[in-house]
Amino acid sequence: MTARRKLTYEILDIGNKQHTLGRVIDIFLIVLISLNVLFVILETLPSISALEHRWFYWFEVFSVIVFSIEYVARVWSCVEDEAINHKHPVWGRLRYMLTPLALIDLIVILPFYLSMMLVVDLRFMRVLRLLRVFKLTRYSASMSLLLQVLHREARSIGAALFVLFMLIIVASSLIYFAEHHAQPEVFSSIPAAMWWAIVTMTTVGYGDVIPITVMGKIMASVISIMSLGIVALPAGLLASGFSEAIRERRRTYEKMVNLALQDGE
Amino acid sequence: MTARRKLTYEILDIGNKQHTLGRVIDIFLIVLISLNVLFVILETLPSISALEHRWFYWFEVFSVIVFSIEYVARVWSCVEDEAINHKHPVWGRLRYMLTPLALIDLIVILPFYLSMMLVVDLRFMRVLRLLRVFKLTRYSASMSLLLQVLHREARSIGAALFVLFMLIIVASSLIYFAEHHAQPEVFSSIPAAMWWAIVTMTTVGYGDVIPITVMGKIMASVISIMSLGIVALPAGLLASGFSEAIRERRRTYEKMVNLALQDGE
Amino acid sequence: MTARRKLTYEILDIGNKQHTLGRVIDIFLIVLISLNVLFVILETLPSISALEHRWFYWFEVFSVIVFSIEYVARVWSCVEDEAINHKHPVWGRLRYMLTPLALIDLIVILPFYLSMMLVVDLRFMRVLRLLRVFKLTRYSASMSLLLQVLHREARSIGAALFVLFMLIIVASSLIYFAEHHAQPEVFSSIPAAMWWAIVTMTTVGYGDVIPITVMGKIMASVISIMSLGIVALPAGLLASGFSEAIRERRRTYEKMVNLALQDGE
Amino acid sequence: MTARRKLTYEILDIGNKQHTLGRVIDIFLIVLISLNVLFVILETLPSISALEHRWFYWFEVFSVIVFSIEYVARVWSCVEDEAINHKHPVWGRLRYMLTPLALIDLIVILPFYLSMMLVVDLRFMRVLRLLRVFKLTRYSASMSLLLQVLHREARSIGAALFVLFMLIIVASSLIYFAEHHAQPEVFSSIPAAMWWAIVTMTTVGYGDVIPITVMGKIMASVISIMSLGIVALPAGLLASGFSEAIRERRRTYEKMVNLALQDGE
Repeated sequence: MTARRKLTYEILDIGNKQHTLGRVIDIFLIVLISLNVLFVILETLPSISALEHRWFYWFEVFSVIVFSIEYVARVWSCVEDEAINHKHPVWGRLRYMLTPLALIDLIVILPFYLSMMLVVDLRFMRVLRLLRVFKLTRYSASMSLLLQVLHREARSIGAALFVLFMLIIVASSLIYFAEHHAQPEVFSSIPAAMWWAIVTMTTVGYGDVIPITVMGKIMASVISIMSLGIVALPAGLLASGFSEAIRERRRTYEKMVNLALQDGE
Repeated sequence: MTARRKLTYEILDIGNKQHTLGRVIDIFLIVLISLNVLFVILETLPSISALEHRWFYWFEVFSVIVFSIEYVARVWSCVEDEAINHKHPVWGRLRYMLTPLALIDLIVILPFYLSMMLVVDLRFMRVLRLLRVFKLTRYSASMSLLLQVLHREARSIGAALFVLFMLIIVASSLIYFAEHHAQPEVFSSIPAAMWWAIVTMTTVGYGDVIPITVMGKIMASVISIMSLGIVALPAGLLASGFSEAIRERRRTYEKMVNLALQDGE
Repeated sequence: MTARRKLTYEILDIGNKQHTLGRVIDIFLIVLISLNVLFVILETLPSISALEHRWFYWFEVFSVIVFSIEYVARVWSCVEDEAINHKHPVWGRLRYMLTPLALIDLIVILPFYLSMMLVVDLRFMRVLRLLRVFKLTRYSASMSLLLQVLHREARSIGAALFVLFMLIIVASSLIYFAEHHAQPEVFSSIPAAMWWAIVTMTTVGYGDVIPITVMGKIMASVISIMSLGIVALPAGLLASGFSEAIRERRRTYEKMVNLALQDGE
Repeated sequence: MTARRKLTYEILDIGNKQHTLGRVIDIFLIVLISLNVLFVILETLPSISALEHRWFYWFEVFSVIVFSIEYVARVWSCVEDEAINHKHPVWGRLRYMLTPLALIDLIVILPFYLSMMLVVDLRFMRVLRLLRVFKLTRYSASMSLLLQVLHREARSIGAALFVLFMLIIVASSLIYFAEHHAQPEVFSSIPAAMWWAIVTMTTVGYGDVIPITVMGKIMASVISIMSLGIVALPAGLLASGFSEAIRERRRTYEKMVNLALQDGE
């Protein structure tokens, strides 16, 4: 029993590449998740959603069954994890069930079972099904790298976002007082002016809300030039943190290879 | 008396974290300032401004009283500052009152008292009330960091802005001469063309002013490609200065921790 | 015969600058390729395409003849290449013919010969003729440098693109569920919402698809601020990789010069 | 005579800060140039151009006289320059007159004299008068720094621009073939599609030219994501080169200060 549990754990473990079966299951799950996301997207196309309702339903049932088996297997075998805090048969499993990845695994299958008992809003169901895209996080080194960078640079990125936030408030208030009388419909309130401020400061510039007074245009000019610098702050911090983390990982990898070579001599 | 003044100073000092009361007051003031800013923003929403006029008035009275007490307490206790230039009971306090942060503290309460004596434009009052957002600067390390970077990199950022300014003048003049005859309403003058130049060069691109002649489009193409580089200059300088300052601060902090550890040995 | 083949190889080799004839042929081919690309572009202008049909045809015949001779000469002389894998008279040549540059050389002349035997869609022909622009890659150090950087940084740029891809899916789904009921025509499906997501996240912001509900605007604000950072990732990685590669190349060049100077002493 | 010429040279020399008169003349010329640029801009405002025609004319006469005196003085005194190639009384002066700054000095006054003899197009005159803005280059360290960076990084920026140029050609051709049939008016030819390509790839995104077919939208998505990276190349190279040059200049300055301090010991 324990041997089988250990085997299950090793097969489901991503980093582990000993078992061919493990790799086959990884690929199978990645394909299944991708198809699920693809189908949520395609179902919204009127031409398709009308056509193949039945087919989509059975695919959904199949997916839920597979994801349920995966979830049960993961919870059952998690006690084999090297990490000490999952060792306990009950508390270890409960603790594992509260990790972000395990919670996502649960959330993406739960609505299906609920919908058999209760009447659930279909639209809400769809959004939950779309969450399956986050199951891919387990297989993506880049996503975990980004989360790690966000965690490490949290303070400085937060600082840059705070400055950005202050500028958005000041910019939207100034433009409101400048444009409110000329365009009472468009710049109806400061929250409405915030939409303009964000669209302008991120340089998206849809063109649905535009200052027309001379004063408003001068303000918009100053704000858009200032925001060039302010907006570059979080982007620059994230980019440099990301590239640094990648370099670090590469260096660690090279060190390991060197150590392995020295051991071999 | 002096002891009480010293205590007041220590409680109001941001960096000082000995007094629990000081931290409670910090949080209270941050919340009050944030609520003030939020209310100025919400008041502009038609649905809300009609509803709760009375409530907003009493909140304003309460805020002004708190900020007045804060201001008086700060001015009274500032002579306890380690900085030598505030020591003198009269001149020291006057000098303190002229620091940027103290001036903001005064400006955000003054209009209320003035409005009791004079008839003041309500719209102008609101703008002044919005200035309360800058009271948050005292509590934000990131804002002071940014100001510090702006100060240190002032010369090079100024240089980049001068180049940007030259390019705006040249770009708006060129497009004016190219498009004035085809669109006399839109490109009515060089100052009007400057609006186009800034919107294009910051890559906001609202689409309200667009060249239509072949010559104008060729110029706009060259200008927008050139501005990619020119506009990146101030942004890049600010971003690299900001990330350098953060790294420096971290290093200083680590040095202090190491020194403290060595002292402890 | 072998001597002539060696001479042909040396003349066609780009790096080789001994033969004046080689440099003349290089320039002639660059001009011919550029003219070809220019003509494909100009032919689409209604005023020109009507005018000089005959002239364009003979230029096309001339170009194909020159490119054919070039192709045959390259394939014939490729066995003189230092690279060991082209030495064999038959397999070496076949292997050479499968290199990307040789394939492009073939693809840009083949349609002409096919069109003499079969009825080929003229529009498709034009697209293939436009591929001639890629023949310039052989003469451009920057293009090969970029390809080299893309190859070296493939993993990290791929990682950044994966994150971007995830964000596009999540953003378009969220905006679809927020805006579908308010604008069923515009946000008709998630794939349609993807167009909005990409236009917004790259900060292009055409303004043809814009959220109008409060919920949609809040989501769009958050997405556009987040995407500032995410979108900067691949751009930053590519830019830093490119500038690093240029610095490396310069250093290699300087090392070579220094070695040459030391040898001379 | 020679002494007076030497004095004239020293007074007009920008770097030289010994003569108070020299600094006064510098400031006077900067103000005069700025006013000239400002007036060319203001004259295009309908309200102003109607009003003060006479006044503008006399200011123009005054400016041309001052700039003429400046030009003659510079040419006359240039032989005092330390640079060896201006020593000769005739050839040295001719060589000086062909430097870019001296040419600008000539071009901005010549049209006035020409207009007294010939009938010159007024619009063309204005453009030439606007060139006076480039006379400021002499006084701006940042402008000369930028030119220096452009010169030093010319090869790598040129490489990045070549890649950008290739992408513009490929992008505009692809979108032309995808959208020509759906929007024959808008995407009438590849040169017309280039306007779309540049507006999209620089992320300006006016919204005057937008793909509407599914194929066109997919292409536009891929192109705008790719261009994020390509467009960041020249911007990144310029920004890093600029910040490096500033750092270098600072280091040189510090070295000079240190040397001066050591000499003083």
